[in-house]
Amino acid sequence: MTIATGHVADEFEPVRQLFEDFLVAEPEYSAQLAVLRNGETAVELAGGPTLAADSLTGVYSVSKGVSALVIAYLIERGMLALDRRVAHYWPEFGTAGKENVTVGDLLSHRAGLAALNPGTFAFDEFLEHSEQGAARLATQPPLWLPGSAFGYHALTIGILMEELVRRVTGRTLQDVYDTEIRGPRDAEFYLGFPENLDDRYVPLSPPVLTEQQQREAAARPPMDALAQTVFTNVDAPDDLSDHGISTNNPRVRRVGPAAIGGVGSARGLARLYADALPSAGRPIASEAVFRDMAIQRSWGHDRVLDVTNSFGAVFLLPQPRMPYAGLGAFGHDGAAGALAFADPSTGISFGYIPWPRQHPGGADHRSVALARLARECALADEASA
Amino acid sequence: MTIATGHVADEFEPVRQLFEDFLVAEPEYSAQLAVLRNGETAVELAGGPTLAADSLTGVYSVSKGVSALVIAYLIERGMLALDRRVAHYWPEFGTAGKENVTVGDLLSHRAGLAALNPGTFAFDEFLEHSEQGAARLATQPPLWLPGSAFGYHALTIGILMEELVRRVTGRTLQDVYDTEIRGPRDAEFYLGFPENLDDRYVPLSPPVLTEQQQREAAARPPMDALAQTVFTNVDAPDDLSDHGISTNNPRVRRVGPAAIGGVGSARGLARLYADALPSAGRPIASEAVFRDMAIQRSWGHDRVLDVTNSFGAVFLLPQPRMPYAGLGAFGHDGAAGALAFADPSTGISFGYIPWPRQHPGGADHRSVALARLARECALADEASA
Amino acid sequence: MTIATGHVADEFEPVRQLFEDFLVAEPEYSAQLAVLRNGETAVELAGGPTLAADSLTGVYSVSKGVSALVIAYLIERGMLALDRRVAHYWPEFGTAGKENVTVGDLLSHRAGLAALNPGTFAFDEFLEHSEQGAARLATQPPLWLPGSAFGYHALTIGILMEELVRRVTGRTLQDVYDTEIRGPRDAEFYLGFPENLDDRYVPLSPPVLTEQQQREAAARPPMDALAQTVFTNVDAPDDLSDHGISTNNPRVRRVGPAAIGGVGSARGLARLYADALPSAGRPIASEAVFRDMAIQRSWGHDRVLDVTNSFGAVFLLPQPRMPYAGLGAFGHDGAAGALAFADPSTGISFGYIPWPRQHPGGADHRSVALARLARECALADEASA
Repeated sequence: MTIATGHVADEFEPVRQLFEDFLVAEPEYSAQLAVLRNGETAVELAGGPTLAADSLTGVYSVSKGVSALVIAYLIERGMLALDRRVAHYWPEFGTAGKENVTVGDLLSHRAGLAALNPGTFAFDEFLEHSEQGAARLATQPPLWLPGSAFGYHALTIGILMEELVRRVTGRTLQDVYDTEIRGPRDAEFYLGFPENLDDRYVPLSPPVLTEQQQREAAARPPMDALAQTVFTNVDAPDDLSDHGISTNNPRVRRVGPAAIGGVGSARGLARLYADALPSAGRPIASEAVFRDMAIQRSWGHDRVLDVTNSFGAVFLLPQPRMPYAGLGAFGHDGAAGALAFADPSTGISFGYIPWPRQHPGGADHRSVALARLARECALADEASA
Repeated sequence: MTIATGHVADEFEPVRQLFEDFLVAEPEYSAQLAVLRNGETAVELAGGPTLAADSLTGVYSVSKGVSALVIAYLIERGMLALDRRVAHYWPEFGTAGKENVTVGDLLSHRAGLAALNPGTFAFDEFLEHSEQGAARLATQPPLWLPGSAFGYHALTIGILMEELVRRVTGRTLQDVYDTEIRGPRDAEFYLGFPENLDDRYVPLSPPVLTEQQQREAAARPPMDALAQTVFTNVDAPDDLSDHGISTNNPRVRRVGPAAIGGVGSARGLARLYADALPSAGRPIASEAVFRDMAIQRSWGHDRVLDVTNSFGAVFLLPQPRMPYAGLGAFGHDGAAGALAFADPSTGISFGYIPWPRQHPGGADHRSVALARLARECALADEASA
Repeated sequence: MTIATGHVADEFEPVRQLFEDFLVAEPEYSAQLAVLRNGETAVELAGGPTLAADSLTGVYSVSKGVSALVIAYLIERGMLALDRRVAHYWPEFGTAGKENVTVGDLLSHRAGLAALNPGTFAFDEFLEHSEQGAARLATQPPLWLPGSAFGYHALTIGILMEELVRRVTGRTLQDVYDTEIRGPRDAEFYLGFPENLDDRYVPLSPPVLTEQQQREAAARPPMDALAQTVFTNVDAPDDLSDHGISTNNPRVRRVGPAAIGGVGSARGLARLYADALPSAGRPIASEAVFRDMAIQRSWGHDRVLDVTNSFGAVFLLPQPRMPYAGLGAFGHDGAAGALAFADPSTGISFGYIPWPRQHPGGADHRSVALARLARECALADEASA
């Protein structure tokens, strides 16, 4: 019986097996999985009732890693530098205690701009007019003394990346992405989802919690004000959940905000990250640029998420809490359970999108298990070669 | 049946209900609760067998937040600045690796002066002659490399604040407090408790642990030497417990050491913090000064308390472990379970004092629950207005 | 019935009792314990079936503390300084983002050189030719942005110490140790174990886990790539366990690598640390030098070990997770359960070596309990004097 459809290279058969085990164990579960090795397809699978091979869906914060490819592209071309002060590119930013914040600080969640405070962003300040959202953030004092903490800028990091790109190119991040990165590769991943593909869009589910997870959530202390402010910082139509700012809202997916607005497929993600590897056929940036973006800049107790965390410039790095790949790998997870990354130590690029949403807040246990097994297969094949 | 006596504005009725639930659940429990909203009394309650409306009692480290009001007062007047080096005001301090420690570092528990070591403070070096205690601390190398950690300066932060105030005013912190802050507001909270009020003083109880808490305490590993040194650093008459340095000792409450020596009522505390809000009738300092003192300067694993913690300048901030108020709020808890703070995001100022002592080491679950509920009431009322 | 043999001063009788309790409770358990007080033997015991009074065995990372004595010796003589940049002594090091790393940073696990990456050390680059291992590390970018984290440099800290010593003395760390530190004291602890003592060498056991520990290990998430890289960074003959680089391998113990290659006895360790105390008969370095090396330079979440940790320069400090001694004490634990330290607050120097290996990764609960009890005995005796 074929449970998952698609292609798997012989040396990655164990990955298919694990993927199918997951499908069998939970009938509602559906997923896409793509693993490329040095740009060649090693695994491309879809299974379960909801996501087919050609489905496209939202991936929340996995979008941040894709937006980071635009940052890498601009660093490669000398238009941005991580060790420069943000105010060099964006003079209005250099105020209220943020004068010496560098681009590297900003992109590794260190600048204390995780939320507008007081106040909230109007919906269009997060979407079509993020330059106005950025202008409001620029004048604000940081939420913590720069240097004293880092904390996940869940929504604002997108506004901040968008403004940096605007300042140094005069174009939107989404436009640079589409023209310079997605287009030439014909990658199935969009920041700004075209209307003519809407019939392939599969809506995100509401979060599904197991009974165990529900009990844990009920026992958890109430959310800290800072975290709550971060996650409810946009005046969206439905501001009690994140659906107002999810890509289920057509207005959101049409704009494709850099923080959470990406729509695509697992193979689209794996294809993009393949060109972030040293083996890239059409490199987005040089190995040195990605190495610099993948160096850990933030480590410790995340002030917003209240967990131990590890970030490079934008990228969420493999770490004890989420050991998804080898040393030097870089990528991002997303609230619905998706994960995408590149791992120079194996040449693997990886995309995974599950349905329904399992673990609000990041990659689920399946994504990490699949990613680790893919790594083992690659290493075993290398050792036997 | 009236269980708690006092006044509650209609929109805060749920707070009275919760307060009464606590009283009903535990017959020995007694407490004062005061909530002002933009300086107007919203809640003023007392209940239970021990604390009446006009009781005055000790609040341990809640005193630190009150002492911080003196610091704010002096910053407002240009006499102190957080970003200046301590040695600028106190030349003898600038030695043994502490040359570049700023006032902001010192007041956010970063300077590594959490205890005298080796040695201990004579009782009078903590009380009437804290200038001598300060002189001993000034020459000492820090307990950790400045910049590498922060840790609660449970007792010494008082000595250090007192010396800073002495250096820039020539007066004691207690005198500045009494003359400039308490007096003009006739606030029922004292640093230096007058003998003629002793008949209103209700003694602190020894810590009371539930069976569950006793089991937890027994299972806990022994206290680290640094923490033990911090908490037994004063040669008090009864140095095996904290009663020798508690305000039950008349000599302690007469002096009112800035770290732990305050005595007063919940309404006194709420009244003081009301004048730390933007809506203050008689502001202790400007909104900008309090915003700067309330910015997070320390975050992470507290080297002394061995918990995750968050501090501004002196103030203990709302945080995941103790989410007592909104973003931008500032206050302090105390070992006996008391809590007091100001929250600019709602205009609330808050004072709460329980008896007996429930959770050695900080605000109890009731204080946080009451504070959060008061916030919800204020926000609901605002939304319906 | 005499269970443990050896000498115990009257005031330390409780320590003998606890030691014997441990022996009775677990028949396979064997250990050496030595406590000196201001250089005089207070406890010297051996018990159990494997380790006798004159046994010599490997102690893994306890070796780091002994190697640190060589560093102290050189600091005392002005040949090294913690606040100097590493590149001052070792120009090739000052590259790829490590230009401003100080000796103090490097020795407190902050420099991000916890592993070679990509690649691994050839066995001889870790042993006879660590200058070649050092040369490879010198050119490497750090694994994290210097200043953003610290993490246990389990193996590389030895290579790095060895290179520093080579640069400033022209000799090997092991030679300086043997000539200047071990020899004059005739201490039973070797970095470079002589062949003629091999008949006294007791092999390290494989790790022994209780059922409870096995369950815990099975439930633990897989090891993070960074940690895994750190612990498998040497191409040893048996690279699936640490036995290839343990002192059971004669080649390893003959060289005695500074990180993990020491062999000796508990009394040898206690004897060495006695000369690191202010009461030293033949001080290795002055009190000021050891105070500076014992100041905490790293605190928080260790990026490699994934636990809270506290380091001075090389030395692992007493801390909440391992409260082995008083404030100002310094020493090191080892993977097989051994522990050695000096505690200026009591004048105690301490050596303890258990068999079989109980807790991979550090001092076992017995070591901390014995060390704390020895401290209590010393303090009680002082109080009664």
